[in-house]
Amino acid sequence: MRLCRSTRLPRCNAPFSAEIKKPTDAIIRILRACVCGSDLWWYRGIAKRESGTTVGHEAIGIVEEVGSDVVAVHPGDFVIAPFTHGCGKCAACRAGFDGSCLEPTEGPNGGYQGEYLRFEHANWALVKIPGKTEDYTDAQLNNFLTLADVMATGYHSAASAEVKEGDTVAVIGDGAVGLCGVIGARLCGAKRIIFMSHHEDRAKLGREFGATDIVSERGDDAIKKVMGLTNGVGVDAVQECVGAVSAIEQAGKIARPGAVIGRVGVPQTEPSSKTLFWKNIGLRGGIANVTTYDKNILLEAVLDGEINPGKVFTKRFDLDHIQEAYEAMDKREAIKSLVIVADK
Amino acid sequence: MRLCRSTRLPRCNAPFSAEIKKPTDAIIRILRACVCGSDLWWYRGIAKRESGTTVGHEAIGIVEEVGSDVVAVHPGDFVIAPFTHGCGKCAACRAGFDGSCLEPTEGPNGGYQGEYLRFEHANWALVKIPGKTEDYTDAQLNNFLTLADVMATGYHSAASAEVKEGDTVAVIGDGAVGLCGVIGARLCGAKRIIFMSHHEDRAKLGREFGATDIVSERGDDAIKKVMGLTNGVGVDAVQECVGAVSAIEQAGKIARPGAVIGRVGVPQTEPSSKTLFWKNIGLRGGIANVTTYDKNILLEAVLDGEINPGKVFTKRFDLDHIQEAYEAMDKREAIKSLVIVADK
Repeated sequence: MRLCRSTRLPRCNAPFSAEIKKPTDAIIRILRACVCGSDLWWYRGIAKRESGTTVGHEAIGIVEEVGSDVVAVHPGDFVIAPFTHGCGKCAACRAGFDGSCLEPTEGPNGGYQGEYLRFEHANWALVKIPGKTEDYTDAQLNNFLTLADVMATGYHSAASAEVKEGDTVAVIGDGAVGLCGVIGARLCGAKRIIFMSHHEDRAKLGREFGATDIVSERGDDAIKKVMGLTNGVGVDAVQECVGAVSAIEQAGKIARPGAVIGRVGVPQTEPSSKTLFWKNIGLRGGIANVTTYDKNILLEAVLDGEINPGKVFTKRFDLDHIQEAYEAMDKREAIKSLVIVADK
Repeated sequence: MRLCRSTRLPRCNAPFSAEIKKPTDAIIRILRACVCGSDLWWYRGIAKRESGTTVGHEAIGIVEEVGSDVVAVHPGDFVIAPFTHGCGKCAACRAGFDGSCLEPTEGPNGGYQGEYLRFEHANWALVKIPGKTEDYTDAQLNNFLTLADVMATGYHSAASAEVKEGDTVAVIGDGAVGLCGVIGARLCGAKRIIFMSHHEDRAKLGREFGATDIVSERGDDAIKKVMGLTNGVGVDAVQECVGAVSAIEQAGKIARPGAVIGRVGVPQTEPSSKTLFWKNIGLRGGIANVTTYDKNILLEAVLDGEINPGKVFTKRFDLDHIQEAYEAMDKREAIKSLVIVADK
């Protein structure tokens, strides 16, 4: 039993116990964690979450202990702890869709914003980072941290939208996921990336990440602007990184016939299927295939210095100031809040 | 002005005039036409259709006259007259989505069940058949006729579902489109084709077209059967050839995570987007890209004798018995009704 501090709901001083329960588990000692836009749902009271629940779902850390079946990682290994827990063996994982792994996990759902984490399906789902933490700069550590969710989710929006070499794409949503979606579009070969952003700081970072055009208008004006930028035709692919009613509707209106909308925001509404039908517009996406993307493309892109998604962390906190980390995101004072749990 | 008989709603003896109105028009003298499942919507009073409207949207025939801008076909040419009228030049057509061509047509919508037809965007949308009608057998003429809609639409369900080499797919809907969907799945390389059919004659034809498994159960029993056939995983791709509420829901339930549903039935309902999201299931499809498919793959497959979609015509009529042609389909006495308009 390893008693530790873990952010719980409501804030709870009782220590949390992270322990191996199954032979496929590992215990991770967390170095860095962060707050996700989706954490704001329960923070704001929009989504329900039980009292006492541990929270957070993105972290990097050191493997502390492994279950008897875990052979791919060992104590002392430096790892990315994805929010997904693909088993690596089921039909979904084999098809590259570990975000929809068919093997159940038992929870607790969360616990990454803490000192220790019980991580399920550790054998396949954990992503090993070569070397030691000391080998990397602060900026590189932040890059790795985004591979636990936000960069993989941004990439999923591009992959789901079937973005290909030379495409003109639109990215809806200028949160950390949308920003990483811009990076994803670039990795998939998009030539022109229209980034829908209403905030100057995010638009600036979007440009740095590869956006070629910024659309700061809202609603119908934004649609007109995109249509104007594409000779009245619409874009080849839309990355929908919000999930709100307005975003889904906007996506359908700016997509050219035959385009695919890649969505990664949990949908608040059903898109108008008939509108999509008449324009032959596709709708794909869901929970990101974090481990698959990390192992296939993203970790290498970070190690090569090709992408720098860690720039989405614009404020940093420690576990003692976790409340402030949430507040900064809630008030849009931070694009994404970093939480330093341990130095090494 | 070319006064002719054309099936009109309600049956109307007044002659119809087919004439060139735009330089991109052609007049087609119809040889064979047919009745589509979608024609039954207005026949049954489910969809509204104005009195006096000409009907039918599938035919093969001979080019009688062309507008001044038409250079790709000439009077005397033997052609397929697709129900779509892709201009061949807009962004949608260039992307291969001529089913959602951005250039308007002015109508009338229909008129293929008649002696002469005004065909818009004739330069690109018409599909030239090599040689003369006399070069072909009765069965081959029927194969060509399916390329005006039903075979291209069936193929669209497979292409939209992104069926690829070695896939296990399910085809929902055992009408003529679903049957052609089985052929489409085979052309896309599917290894296993599960055909959902409740009618023995259609199931038999489905097997002949390439189906490897028949599921004759309905509702939840059908879902259980498909899951049983796929080790509880679901299929790699679903071709939804109905459009009804139950079909769309069934599609989502039998698809494995990451699968794509290719739909060609005009949707009567919105699929549950959230269900699709959590399983990373995609939804694509719409109006078939008839001319693109005909020119790229289908005409050659028919000419090579690789496919025989014309077998969906199980009863034949002439223009004087058009009412019976509709009745045979309405009563499910015919899979699809052929209408012989002229011998040559």
